[in-house]
Amino acid sequence: MATKKIPKATAKRLPIYYRYLSVLLSANKRRVSSTELSEAVQVDSATIRRDFSYFGELGKRGYGYDVGSLLNFFKGILNQDTLTNVALVGVGSLGSALLNYNFHQDTNLRISAAFDTKPELANTVKSGIPIYPASEMQKQIKEQQIDAVILTVPSSTSQKVADQLVSVGVKGILNFTPVRLSVPKNIQVQNIDLTNELQTLIYFIKNYAENNQDKEEK
Amino acid sequence: MATKKIPKATAKRLPIYYRYLSVLLSANKRRVSSTELSEAVQVDSATIRRDFSYFGELGKRGYGYDVGSLLNFFKGILNQDTLTNVALVGVGSLGSALLNYNFHQDTNLRISAAFDTKPELANTVKSGIPIYPASEMQKQIKEQQIDAVILTVPSSTSQKVADQLVSVGVKGILNFTPVRLSVPKNIQVQNIDLTNELQTLIYFIKNYAENNQDKEEK
Repeated sequence: MATKKIPKATAKRLPIYYRYLSVLLSANKRRVSSTELSEAVQVDSATIRRDFSYFGELGKRGYGYDVGSLLNFFKGILNQDTLTNVALVGVGSLGSALLNYNFHQDTNLRISAAFDTKPELANTVKSGIPIYPASEMQKQIKEQQIDAVILTVPSSTSQKVADQLVSVGVKGILNFTPVRLSVPKNIQVQNIDLTNELQTLIYFIKNYAENNQDKEEK
Repeated sequence: MATKKIPKATAKRLPIYYRYLSVLLSANKRRVSSTELSEAVQVDSATIRRDFSYFGELGKRGYGYDVGSLLNFFKGILNQDTLTNVALVGVGSLGSALLNYNFHQDTNLRISAAFDTKPELANTVKSGIPIYPASEMQKQIKEQQIDAVILTVPSSTSQKVADQLVSVGVKGILNFTPVRLSVPKNIQVQNIDLTNELQTLIYFIKNYAENNQDKEEK
């Protein structure tokens, strides 16, 4: 399976497809047409067909897609069968909200550890997740073999923390700070810059007339 | 100025350029080369040049870009001179964190109102922002002429709330719920699906070797 070759924009849509297909399966729906799928996930059907084509021919003309096999297929790709431990660094108000956020509802994601410099948070438990002092971060990340970290520290320390994480083997960072991190080429960074998202939305409101809900990412 | 024609991927990078140029200006830096800019914002220089070309020829060979004029230019595009009122609907833990988030640090964005169904939150103030009961949402949004809304309600009510918002003239929604909203074509929706982002990151860690930090969005 040549999953290495799929474009990132396609990869980003996989969890969306996955989620919707899970809903269909629990409603005992066995088949879905590309039109139905398109309307439900708000991605045009040409894009859906192109996305699916990266995984080989999965749909049949006049029949649509088989929900069960599609779901099994995506499950494999998304590693839904393997539990992935994630850490969160920086338990401020956004960090706390993310600890409380139900990431693992229908996924195998789990925040297994959080870290913060504030002494009063050290060795407490929040939303069921243990908070360790920052001084134990590198040790814990190594011991728990954590690959992915959610970064919600203040901007001023984000690069320093990223460097520390990378040095103990972290492979990917979900970066909520507005800082563009400088990391080695083999480290994945996903930026979620909330101010940027809001500014972009307002820019779109003022400059675009038609609905382009995520359709740009082809 | 043909800003209507710029691709959404370019539009999404404008706030990033804007932020970095502001930093340079406050450090009294007058000029920036495309290489410097590229390293700072982690966007390759060919993309930067192509982005800037949508706004006409702004850089000079061997000189680079003039920080002040570039900044003024983007300021106009991003409506930084006009204060934009934004509302937040759904003051749960994520909603509270966003009320507390410093969106307007160097922008002209301001959350001017929040709404929630919980009676104990009604008519209180959180992080300096008034929280109104949900029953007053439509009236307040109309009166305050709010165009953009941050949606942090539970998934089960998100479509209903979106419909109510659209009916009183809201033009754009920053949607934090995993639901893909169905809205009229002229309404902008930006989805921030946190589970999706985390799943995508983990997928990238497992499937991509090189650093592609946001470079896919060309």
